[in-house]
Amino acid sequence: MKTHEEWMDLALNLAEATIGQTSPNPSVGAVVVKDGELLGVGTHLKAGGPHAEVHAINQAGERAKGADVYVTLEPCSHYGKTPPCAELLVQSQVKKVYIACLDPNPKVTGNGVAILKQAGIEVEIGIREERALQINQHFFHYMNEKRPFITLKAATTLDGKTATATGDSKWITSQLAREDVHKQRHQYDAILVGRQTVEQDNPSLTTRLPQGGKSPIRIILDTHLSLDGDFHIFKPDSPTWIVCGKQADKNRFLNKYPHVKVIQLQTTKVDIADLMEILAEEKIESLYVEGGASVHQSFVQAGLFDECHWYIAPKLLGGDDARAVIGGTSPIKMAEAEQLVFQHIEQMGPDIKIIAKRKEESSCLPEL
Amino acid sequence: MKTHEEWMDLALNLAEATIGQTSPNPSVGAVVVKDGELLGVGTHLKAGGPHAEVHAINQAGERAKGADVYVTLEPCSHYGKTPPCAELLVQSQVKKVYIACLDPNPKVTGNGVAILKQAGIEVEIGIREERALQINQHFFHYMNEKRPFITLKAATTLDGKTATATGDSKWITSQLAREDVHKQRHQYDAILVGRQTVEQDNPSLTTRLPQGGKSPIRIILDTHLSLDGDFHIFKPDSPTWIVCGKQADKNRFLNKYPHVKVIQLQTTKVDIADLMEILAEEKIESLYVEGGASVHQSFVQAGLFDECHWYIAPKLLGGDDARAVIGGTSPIKMAEAEQLVFQHIEQMGPDIKIIAKRKEESSCLPEL
Repeated sequence: MKTHEEWMDLALNLAEATIGQTSPNPSVGAVVVKDGELLGVGTHLKAGGPHAEVHAINQAGERAKGADVYVTLEPCSHYGKTPPCAELLVQSQVKKVYIACLDPNPKVTGNGVAILKQAGIEVEIGIREERALQINQHFFHYMNEKRPFITLKAATTLDGKTATATGDSKWITSQLAREDVHKQRHQYDAILVGRQTVEQDNPSLTTRLPQGGKSPIRIILDTHLSLDGDFHIFKPDSPTWIVCGKQADKNRFLNKYPHVKVIQLQTTKVDIADLMEILAEEKIESLYVEGGASVHQSFVQAGLFDECHWYIAPKLLGGDDARAVIGGTSPIKMAEAEQLVFQHIEQMGPDIKIIAKRKEESSCLPEL
Repeated sequence: MKTHEEWMDLALNLAEATIGQTSPNPSVGAVVVKDGELLGVGTHLKAGGPHAEVHAINQAGERAKGADVYVTLEPCSHYGKTPPCAELLVQSQVKKVYIACLDPNPKVTGNGVAILKQAGIEVEIGIREERALQINQHFFHYMNEKRPFITLKAATTLDGKTATATGDSKWITSQLAREDVHKQRHQYDAILVGRQTVEQDNPSLTTRLPQGGKSPIRIILDTHLSLDGDFHIFKPDSPTWIVCGKQADKNRFLNKYPHVKVIQLQTTKVDIADLMEILAEEKIESLYVEGGASVHQSFVQAGLFDECHWYIAPKLLGGDDARAVIGGTSPIKMAEAEQLVFQHIEQMGPDIKIIAKRKEESSCLPEL
């Protein structure tokens, strides 16, 4: 007999397997169980498709009556592209519903639970909640903050350098770490770099994994739309959005690169806060910033980032003139540094991967 | 009944407890056991004092006859300040000697074992060898390489900065990490910084732990002997050696600071390789370099370091003008970076401590 935690972990495994493919919807898994027997499993595969509970209940069929359901997120209560899952569970006459975490949308939080309880279905909330929150952290953040979850990614030597003075950076980290970056790209709605990175490295910014993967939307900061060349980001294999200031000549640029979308801001320079508002409207829930020093600096200065993913290679480069990971001008006092909290440290082949959250954010995940 | 490994670990615990206090001798522990009963324990406490085996055998007395002895380093075979321990074990008529690792000195390796075997005492070598090598890594390195074991220490923000553009660095890391630095100081024969660090931070460079500790010899690089002021390093609480180039006015300096020792090199600038030879002659087996960017850079450039101890704080400072951890001029290619191997990663309060070894050295510990 599996424990409640084990059944919920199975549902969470199903949810986790879809991270990156359900946006703007969350990743959700559900399992139907009776007398220790698994009767149905489901996961939400794609925005617009059936919810996890629908798959799992359909699979269980008539046997769902009197069964227990483990679902990783509160069943929905509203008529959207599909009828509310809470109603489906009521109709199926399940006995008890175990929910890992509530819906983060303040307008509907608890509504799904209320429907179930009104119908006499037992509800238990909070099993494996922390893991459930983690799996959908981008979605939760977007719902709560109304802007994308922003991750700053960097690959540095142990002495904090991202390239030599001449800009050479191939390769700092190992194959394993670089593959992990591609796994991350799959999980984000959009990836962002600056014009200089495009000109210097000519990256594709696509997800290239042996086993496939979804490429994020490519967002390039180019204040004056001065990018000019046959760069990989202009290939139509994945959408590309170029962000420019108000004085840039949008039409000229679009004549040359008709496949791209140009986001023209109302300021002369690129204002990160304004851009994040626009991205939020575009339903970009998560943004992976693979900036050079000046792009990273503009996000840090704007106070707009949630997590840092640092890949540190076992190397000492040296050089006051080598490229720093965050540019701009140093604060006067060390006490003015942006405070983080280390969340995860992992040896990744020869390298180290560190995940740090902003200190003020590290404890702001939604609570029951 | 304890296993052989458990008895050896007890002996190794005794050895480990003396790290930092036995130089230029190694840290050694010994236990005497018969029929599962502990009869004597010993550890070498201080250069010039009795060896670990002497304490342990004395404690066991007549009962040592027919006993097993676990010793963390091959018993010595030469008449030095004390008679050879191998002879003592023979005279005590012990039955079997378990040795964690052999003496690293090629001139005497295996001699202690030979004496024991000739006397009909069984010998087993290699129990917990890796741990034994680690405990005396400074000593082993010194014996094999004829120069101090050199550790570069740095405290940086996640973006690799050691201070703001104005030099403010108080404090990057937490109390816990700073205390760990003091624990390290206790374990090294000498600590080294540059003149600029003295002028900027006026450090004491002593070991200050709530429970006490041995302070290392303070070595300051000051090419022109231009240090001038009432700095903490000139206090007589711990020895201070000043290293200068051949053109410096040694006598004038000694008139002002009679307590210090001046090491005048035969070159105009401070040559790290020459200095390490002199320190080796002075029996400095281990050196803890708490440099600023230029001191670290001179060790890296000379290829003279064995380990990096990096304390990384959960902070982003930013700024192309903030202080780098290794200064000088960047190589042209990333492939020219000094290759390391990460050996140990540890979360230390809010910070991370990383120990990295030079790649070429990471597999050169003496083998059986």
